Amino acid sequence: MATSPSEAADFLPGNLMHRLRALPVEVQMLELGSPGSGDFLKFMQGFRPDILLACWETPQLSPDWAVGKRGLTYVCYLAGSVKKLVPRELMERGLRVSNWGGSISRTVSECTLLLILGALRRAAYWSVAMHREGLWKDRRTTVTQSLFGKTVGLHGFGLIAQELVPLLKPFGCQVNAYSPRVPDEVFERLGVGRCRSLDEVFSGHEVVVELAPYTPSNHHVVTEEILRKIPRGGVFVNVGRGAVVDEEALARVAAEGEIQIGLDVYENEPLPLESPLRGMDNVMLLPHLGGPTKDRRRDAGEYALRNLECYLKGEPMPGEITLEIYERST
Amino acid sequence: MATSPSEAADFLPGNLMHRLRALPVEVQMLELGSPGSGDFLKFMQGFRPDILLACWETPQLSPDWAVGKRGLTYVCYLAGSVKKLVPRELMERGLRVSNWGGSISRTVSECTLLLILGALRRAAYWSVAMHREGLWKDRRTTVTQSLFGKTVGLHGFGLIAQELVPLLKPFGCQVNAYSPRVPDEVFERLGVGRCRSLDEVFSGHEVVVELAPYTPSNHHVVTEEILRKIPRGGVFVNVGRGAVVDEEALARVAAEGEIQIGLDVYENEPLPLESPLRGMDNVMLLPHLGGPTKDRRRDAGEYALRNLECYLKGEPMPGEITLEIYERST
Repeated sequence: MATSPSEAADFLPGNLMHRLRALPVEVQMLELGSPGSGDFLKFMQGFRPDILLACWETPQLSPDWAVGKRGLTYVCYLAGSVKKLVPRELMERGLRVSNWGGSISRTVSECTLLLILGALRRAAYWSVAMHREGLWKDRRTTVTQSLFGKTVGLHGFGLIAQELVPLLKPFGCQVNAYSPRVPDEVFERLGVGRCRSLDEVFSGHEVVVELAPYTPSNHHVVTEEILRKIPRGGVFVNVGRGAVVDEEALARVAAEGEIQIGLDVYENEPLPLESPLRGMDNVMLLPHLGGPTKDRRRDAGEYALRNLECYLKGEPMPGEITLEIYERST
Repeated sequence: MATSPSEAADFLPGNLMHRLRALPVEVQMLELGSPGSGDFLKFMQGFRPDILLACWETPQLSPDWAVGKRGLTYVCYLAGSVKKLVPRELMERGLRVSNWGGSISRTVSECTLLLILGALRRAAYWSVAMHREGLWKDRRTTVTQSLFGKTVGLHGFGLIAQELVPLLKPFGCQVNAYSPRVPDEVFERLGVGRCRSLDEVFSGHEVVVELAPYTPSNHHVVTEEILRKIPRGGVFVNVGRGAVVDEEALARVAAEGEIQIGLDVYENEPLPLESPLRGMDNVMLLPHLGGPTKDRRRDAGEYALRNLECYLKGEPMPGEITLEIYERST
C-alpha cells in the first residue's frame, strides 16, 4: 500500500484499516510525502508486492515494471482515473486493475441536486450579493423557482444519473433520460422515461442535467443550437464532463440571462481566470468538487476492500477495469 | 378581490382564476398599483364586499371597518402574515380570516435542503471565490461533506420540518426533533425520533436545523452556549425565525470557522450592511426567500380557493386563523 497519510485516513479510516490488515496477505505501508517518487521506487523494488493499493498521490508506474508471476499482478486503485497511475502496456501484459467504480456516484448526484436547487433560487447570485454587495431582496425583482413538479431531462443515464433519481423523487419530478446504451429495464426499474434524442432532452424539460460520458463522438455534442432549446426560465446543470458542451456557446447563451446555470465541470480545468462564466449572475460555479466528499471517501475504501477480497478469493471483482473501460476512461 | 396584477398572475394563474369566477359570488377586481391605498378605500366603500381576497399589496384595513351583516364577513388572505392586513379589533368583532397555512411549507423545506447541501459543500464560499476571486480548488485544503448518513436534529417540528423529512429520506439520515407541542403520533408517522431537550438537538447531531416558531419565550433561546454544542465540522441552518437565535453569539461562533452555517432569516431584516455575518467564508446567506417561490405561489392560490369554497358551503376552513393563532403569528 502506497498512499499519503491523509489519503489513508480518508479512504481507510479505523475499521476499514483493520479489515485490510485482517486479509490473508502481508501488508507493507509506504507513506508518500508530497514531493517525490524516489521513495516509491525504492519501496516497490525492496518489497516487490503482488498487489499495490494506490491513490491520487501514488506516482505513475513504469511501463516496463514486472507483471505477473514474480511481479505485480493487481493494482487496487482507491480513486477513479487509473490512466494517471497505470500505463496501458502493463494491462496488456496482464496486470489487473480496479477503481472506485460506482461507489462514489451518489455524492456526485448530491452535488447535482445542490446545483439544481441553487440555480432555481439563484443561490450563487445571492452569495455574492449578500457577502460582497450588501444587498437584500426586492419583492418585485426577486425571481425564485422550486423543483416541486418540474420536468427533468437527463443527458446520460449512467450510475450518477441513476442515483439522482431517488433524490428527485420527493419533488414529484417527471424524469426522462437520453442514453442509447442503457437498457430499457433500468429505465423501467427507476420510473424514468426514455428520450429518443438529445434534442428532446433540451427542448422538453424545465431542468436539463448533463451527465453524458466524454468520448470523442460526444465532444461538443451540446451545441449552441441545442442549448437554445432549453425553455426560457429553465435550468442547465453540468456535472459530467466539460468538453461534452461547447463552453463558448454556453457562455454566449448564459450571457443573455434567460436560463439559470449550475456548473461543476469545465472544458479546461482549472477554469481559466478570463472565462466569461466567472462573474455571471445566473451561473452557479463549483470547482469540480462533485466527486466524493472527504467524509465519504470511506465508501471508496470499502469498495476497494471488496475488490481485494474478491481478488484474493479468485472471484470476479465488481470494480475491475477492463482494457475497454480503460480506453473509454478519462 | 384587491391585489396587484402580478400577485393575481402568480397566485391565481389561468385555471385558478376560472375557478374563482365559477364560485357562486359576484367577483369585483381592484388592480392595486404601487403607491396608494386611496383607490382601495374607494373600492371598498363603493362595492362593500362580504368577502375580501387580499395579498401583500393590499393596504391595511381600518380597525373600525364594518364587520358582519352589511359589512365584511371574511378576509381570504393569499399570503401569510395577516397582522399586516387585519387589525385584531376586526377579528374580535367576528371577522373570519384565513391565510396560506401549510400550502407553502414544502418550498421552505426545499430551501432548507439547499442550505444544508450548500453549507456541507461550502457553496457560498465557492460562489464568491470563483466569481470574484478567480480561485480554483486545492485538493489539500478543499473540505467537502456529504449529507449521506448524517444525523439531523430539528429544533421545531411544525409543517416545514415535517415536509423536510421526506426530502432527507433518500440520504439515509437519522432525524430527531425537539418540539414539546407536537404529539408522538406525528413523530412516529414520519419515523423521526424525539429529542428531550434543546441541548440534545445541538449536541447530538451533525446537522442542526432551526425551525422553531418565534414566541416571546423563544427569544434568543439558542444562546452562545447552545450553539457551541454543535460538533466541530457540523452544520447549523436557520430557516425559521431570526430572533430565536442570539445572532451576535452566532456571529462569534461563526467567526471561529469550526462549523458551516446556512441562514435565510435574521434578527433584523434586511440584514444590516454592517452585520459581521456578511463576508464570512463559512456562512451561506440568502435574503429570506425560503417562502413560496414565484412558480409555486399558485399552491397558495389553490389553498385560498379551497378555503373560499369551504366558507361558502359553511364548512370549516383548513386555513382559518383563530385569534389564538393570530396572537402567536408574526
